[in-house]
Formats: sequence, C-alpha cells, structure tokens
Amino acid sequence: MFAEIITIGDEILIGQVVDTNSAWMGEKLNAVGIKVVQITSISDKSEAIKTALSTALTRADIVLITGGLGPTRDDVTKSSLASYFNMKMRVDGETLRNVENFFTKLNRPLLEVNKLQAEVPEGCEVLLNEYGTAPCMWFEVDGKVVVSMPGVPFEMKYLMEDKVIPKLKEKFSMPFIYHKTILTANIGESFLAELLISVEDNLPEHISLAYLPKLGQVRLRLSGVGANYDNLKNEVDSIAKQIIGIANDYVLAEVDTTLDAVVLTELISRNKTLSTAESCTGGNIGHMLTLNAGGSAAYVGGAITYNNQIKHQVLGVNKEILENFGAVSEETVKEMALGTLNTFQSDYAIATTGIAGPATDNDEKPVGTVWIGFASKQGVKTKLFNFSGKREQIIDRATSAALTFLLYHLKKEDK
Amino acid sequence: MFAEIITIGDEILIGQVVDTNSAWMGEKLNAVGIKVVQITSISDKSEAIKTALSTALTRADIVLITGGLGPTRDDVTKSSLASYFNMKMRVDGETLRNVENFFTKLNRPLLEVNKLQAEVPEGCEVLLNEYGTAPCMWFEVDGKVVVSMPGVPFEMKYLMEDKVIPKLKEKFSMPFIYHKTILTANIGESFLAELLISVEDNLPEHISLAYLPKLGQVRLRLSGVGANYDNLKNEVDSIAKQIIGIANDYVLAEVDTTLDAVVLTELISRNKTLSTAESCTGGNIGHMLTLNAGGSAAYVGGAITYNNQIKHQVLGVNKEILENFGAVSEETVKEMALGTLNTFQSDYAIATTGIAGPATDNDEKPVGTVWIGFASKQGVKTKLFNFSGKREQIIDRATSAALTFLLYHLKKEDK
Repeated sequence: MFAEIITIGDEILIGQVVDTNSAWMGEKLNAVGIKVVQITSISDKSEAIKTALSTALTRADIVLITGGLGPTRDDVTKSSLASYFNMKMRVDGETLRNVENFFTKLNRPLLEVNKLQAEVPEGCEVLLNEYGTAPCMWFEVDGKVVVSMPGVPFEMKYLMEDKVIPKLKEKFSMPFIYHKTILTANIGESFLAELLISVEDNLPEHISLAYLPKLGQVRLRLSGVGANYDNLKNEVDSIAKQIIGIANDYVLAEVDTTLDAVVLTELISRNKTLSTAESCTGGNIGHMLTLNAGGSAAYVGGAITYNNQIKHQVLGVNKEILENFGAVSEETVKEMALGTLNTFQSDYAIATTGIAGPATDNDEKPVGTVWIGFASKQGVKTKLFNFSGKREQIIDRATSAALTFLLYHLKKEDK
Repeated sequence: MFAEIITIGDEILIGQVVDTNSAWMGEKLNAVGIKVVQITSISDKSEAIKTALSTALTRADIVLITGGLGPTRDDVTKSSLASYFNMKMRVDGETLRNVENFFTKLNRPLLEVNKLQAEVPEGCEVLLNEYGTAPCMWFEVDGKVVVSMPGVPFEMKYLMEDKVIPKLKEKFSMPFIYHKTILTANIGESFLAELLISVEDNLPEHISLAYLPKLGQVRLRLSGVGANYDNLKNEVDSIAKQIIGIANDYVLAEVDTTLDAVVLTELISRNKTLSTAESCTGGNIGHMLTLNAGGSAAYVGGAITYNNQIKHQVLGVNKEILENFGAVSEETVKEMALGTLNTFQSDYAIATTGIAGPATDNDEKPVGTVWIGFASKQGVKTKLFNFSGKREQIIDRATSAALTFLLYHLKKEDK
C-alpha cells in the first residue's frame, strides 16, 4: 500500500519552519504497513495543490495533505480540493457546533470568517477535529483515499492516531512491515559494507539493508515486508543476528537508539556513575546525556573548564603541566579526567580538550586536534583525535568520540 | 528565479530522519532572490529520481538534489543522473586525490568501493567537496542547472555556501535582495505586531516584514527587492531604524545574530566574565556559548550539577536548603548562582534548576517549572518560569530564558 504526503505552506519553502510533520507521519504509516513513496512541499497556490494531488494519485493509493486550512485569505486548500473534485461547498453542522464551542470556551466573539471553517466540499466525509476549528476531510475516489488535515502538529497527530490511521486500516488490507536497527561505531560505512558483503548478497528480495552514517557511528537498518508478521520478524531478526555476529566488535546497541542513551543504559546496568570535564566540547557532552530523561541515576554532572585558570582552580590541574605541555595535551587531559573523578566522586570520568577552531594559536596543533581522557579507579586512558570540519562539527565529533571511548573502556573493564 | 529541492533517501520517508536540510536551503536561496517552489522527498530508487527531476525541470530553473551519494549499494543518485542525462561515467582526478587524502589522513586503507566515489557522469562539472568524499556535481541543460550534493548536513551547507550559491549568482542575473534583521526578546509576536502596525501599514510594495519567533525571541526580518542596491539598502535601513526606535526596549541586536553571540559581545565590550551553573539545562548554556569562536575572553566555564550531592559538593549549596526547599526552588538557585560566582571567580554567574520532564516527582512543581538565578557582585536576582513542551523544548527554552535574563541585568547595571 503506497501513500504520499503533501504539505502546503510558504513557510516551509522559505525555510521559516522545518517540516517535522512528514517524518512523524512517515513513521506512523510505516508502522502499519503503508509505505510513503513521496513527500511534496508546495506553496499555498491552488494550481500547485491540484497538480501535486493529481500526480500523487498516479503513484499512491492514499494521499495525506496537511496545511492551508486556516481562516485567512492565504489558506486555499479547501477551495482547491472542491475545485479538483468538482464539488460544491456545504456547511457541516457538527463542525459549525465545534467552532462555536471553541469560541465560547475561549470567551471570544465568533467572526463570520470563523464560521467559514465549517464549510466543506459536499462529497467529503468530515472527521471531527476535537483539538481545533479546521475540519479533517476524507475523500474517496476510484478506490483511493485523499485526506486533508490541519498542519498544526498536535491537531494533525491527534487526527492521524485517533481517526485517519484506524479508518485506513479498516479500508485497506495491508502487508506487515518490520524494521530492525543496529547501532555501530568505530568503523566506517564502507568497511562495514565490506564486512557484510556476504549478508547483503544473500538478502531475500523482500528485505533490504540501509547504512545510515552520522558522526562516527553507522546505523544499520534492515527493513522487511511480508504477509505474515511472525515469519517476517523471525527472518529479519535472524539476519540481524548474523550481522551482529560478524560486526560484533563495532556494535553499540541492537535497537534504534542514540549513543548518549546507550552510555546511560550501560552505566545504569553496571550501577556506575559518570562525571565530565569539558573544554573544547564546552558542555555538549553533558547536554547530550541530559537530553535523556532519568539519566541522573548515572550522570552526576561535570565541569566546563573553558579557561585554563579554571582547569587548575576547579579540577586541580597542575599549573606547571598547563605551562609546560599546554591545555591541549595528553598530560592535561589526564589531569582533567583524574581531577573530575576526584571532585565529582564518580566511578568514571571523561575529559576533552582540543582546538575547535576556526583559528589555532599553535602551529604544531592544527584545528581539530582533540585529546580525550577516560578515568576510572584503575587509572586513566587517553586518545588523540584529528577531526575535520567546521567548529560545530568538531565539537559534535569530539562529543561522539568521547562517548564511544567511554563505552569501549566500559566493555573492556567487563572482560 | 525558481528552484526546486529534491531530497533522496528512504530514511526521510520512513520518518527516521527529519529533513532539516531543505528548510536551511530554502532560507539561503531566498536570501539571494531564488524562490523555492517545491520540495520533494523520494526514495533511493532510480525511477523515482528520474521522474522527480524531470517534473521539477518543467517548473524550475534550478534543481538542487541532496542525498544518495554514499559508497554503498543503496545509493543510486549518481547512476540515476548519468542515465537521465544519458552520460557515461568518468573518473575525476581531483575527486580521486581528495578521496585518497581523506583515507591517508584517517590512516585507513583505501578500498575499491571508495575509489568509486571519484566516478562522475562525464558531462558534469565537479565542485570539490573538501569536507567529504562524495563529489558535488553541477549539470547544465537548456539553460537550467541541476546540482547533486551529499545529504550530510555539514557537507551540504559548506558546498551551498562556498560553491553552489556563488556559482548560481554568477550564472543567473538576479535582482538585488537586501535583508535586515533585528533580534528582539521579552515580547510576544502579536504584541510586537501591534506596536509596529504603523510601520507595516506604510511598507512599500517591494519591502516585506516577517516575524520569526523562536524560543522567546522574535527575529524581525525586513526583505527588500530592487534594481539598485544602494537605494534599496538605504530604504530598508531607514525602516529598520524606525522599528528599532519603536521597539527599543525589546531589541537585543540590530543584526542577524544569535542570543549566545549577543551575550558574549556584550560581556566582552564591558570586559566582564561569566560562569554558569546548570542543573536542568545540563550543559546546554555552556554548549551554546562555546559554539562561538573567541568566547573564552568572557566565558570562563561552569558546573553541570545534575545531582543534588554535586550542588553541595562543587558549588557549596547548603544541604539544609536543598532538604527544606528542594532542588527546584528560589533558595537553591540563589545558592547555585552565588556558589558559581565564588568557585569560578567570574564577574557574573547564571544558574538554572528545574523540571524538564517528562515526569515530575513533585505534585506542586509541574514539568516546565524552572528557576533562573543571576549573580553579580551586587547580589543575586531570580525569576520563575513555567515552560510548556517536551523535554528538549523545555531545556532549549530555559537556556534562552537564562541568557535573556542575563542580558536584561547587564543592561540594567549600566544605568
């Protein structure tokens, strides 16, 4: 079963708004076996809407449209659909009562322009939007379905989950889709592909493997389509097991997750705590870790020691070491990691110090030079990295590298 | 001048990745007078790529394609373009050297599959990608331009800014576009619009005013189009001056900048230093500040005190205060701000403590409750916020609020 998504609104085309609706819809549709084959963003222009809809219907069984349903003049989705389907407008009683209730509740006068919200093309079925005044409209034509929804994310999400997806499942019988994601690190995309060549060569037609690289990690995603869910799941899981067997040294997680979430899970399962000392990453490691709810069981906190004086004052880094070897050095990162372990009284500590650029004041240490340190009760380990990219990229890469370095040593200590 | 963007990759269609590239590209193109009329996301399938390109070329003068240029088998953009333009492949010498350099620098062996990165359709011009191994390819056909770029955001951004946009400006003659941006805070979008109603009513046809709200700030962007650059600039600047006069109390900066950059500029101009104590923001304030090069002149560092024990240990927050009032309280944030000022020996300190959610263990303090503290030699000021949204948004909003609160007090101390 194929679907297309059409998002309507100039704000997306001029980059004022990032379209997060489509990704959310893609994920939900995928989960029920509907494959999104195209997402199209167009402006609030009647011709563009009609052309996009007509071409989408040549490829897909389901077309989901968001946006352009507001009460102001720049919103033309409803009239464009009426024109496309050659339908007159009618007032929908239930929608009108819904609009009136909204204004009563807000204690605001109902304007004529708001009453227009209750007008819909006469041939559509209205799915009541309990979270807003714009109606959700369901059209059927030649066995295909077109749904128009508001673009406001929480209204769209409610309508999709409570009304549209259940109704689509009723109307169409769909195959199952099953995904399995494996997170790897410390190996490049092409090396991983070479390792997995025999797996790829033997993939059945209905299962595909995608490589999704990001900041030193590669996500491997197996996707299968089938009529029997249990068989499909067994088949995909068994291929995943083969992959994990082959790429074992590089596997961080056997589910779709993030590096920072893996770090917290691994720490919590060992009942261990972590602190951080960040110079070039400036708080980004702490930020990534604290994006995960419940991480305080393992992550106690850290120091951002951006300035050398602070490295000495807060973490007790020896002033002579700073003077003799410089802030970006193996000796300094060692002292930072050990000082953090001591100050924050955690089981482990990671430290970063480097040159994020764009300028360096040291000819021998180019932009991208980053030292990472890992300290535990067993001592301190260090590693030197040379990252490329702009400032933000170097900070992101150093953050990933520090978390990966920590995971590597956590697993090593298990042995 | 019309453009279309085509993004290639199953990960977008199944919702694994949100397409942020297109919004970024739309904004940059808009800024140089190129209007994006459609954004199309399709799968890594040759037929889909060729169809999308052929229909885009019926509507637009410029088609920018991202994604599907990796070395693995699921990437088919290059072969699809060669087939579409009916071109054979050739090895591009400069790209091959670039690929070889990458692997030498990474100290990794060069595989055959990586050498394939240097193959390009023979009729295209290669724009060297200094941040990655996938080539950027520029095609011209019937006076129209098609560019294929990698989908990795930082590679795409570098190529767009340094290569593609300058080359587009060379090839096509475009009217001058002049933007002037004013950054405001502490006032909502609709109140600002009400203040500026007389300015808006008198805007000439060729100048528009956009309100871009984000995290408690509103960017006002004046955009003018004209044939004479100097006249246009004078006209737009004079309207900007009117706006700044009217909205003066809320203006943070008279250029397009970020809140964190404004904070650093204001601190450096006063020769003052800042430290941070972050609980609920978990290092994000430090991260935002350190994204700016040269910020170490003002930002010395800070503590991430995620755990209560650490608030006491590192910042000296009184244990009784933590017990009696809780970690999320005015009393605690005061102690955190003063403790940081003392530990980090800075002129100013900001502190955050709050509940980012999704759960709260305190019935009286709902998710979104955040206390912010600002300390200077003159004492400590606090403010309570109640943010809505999910965890990440609450962290982002608290970060913005803390920086805005700091700026407010900096300016107050001047008086």
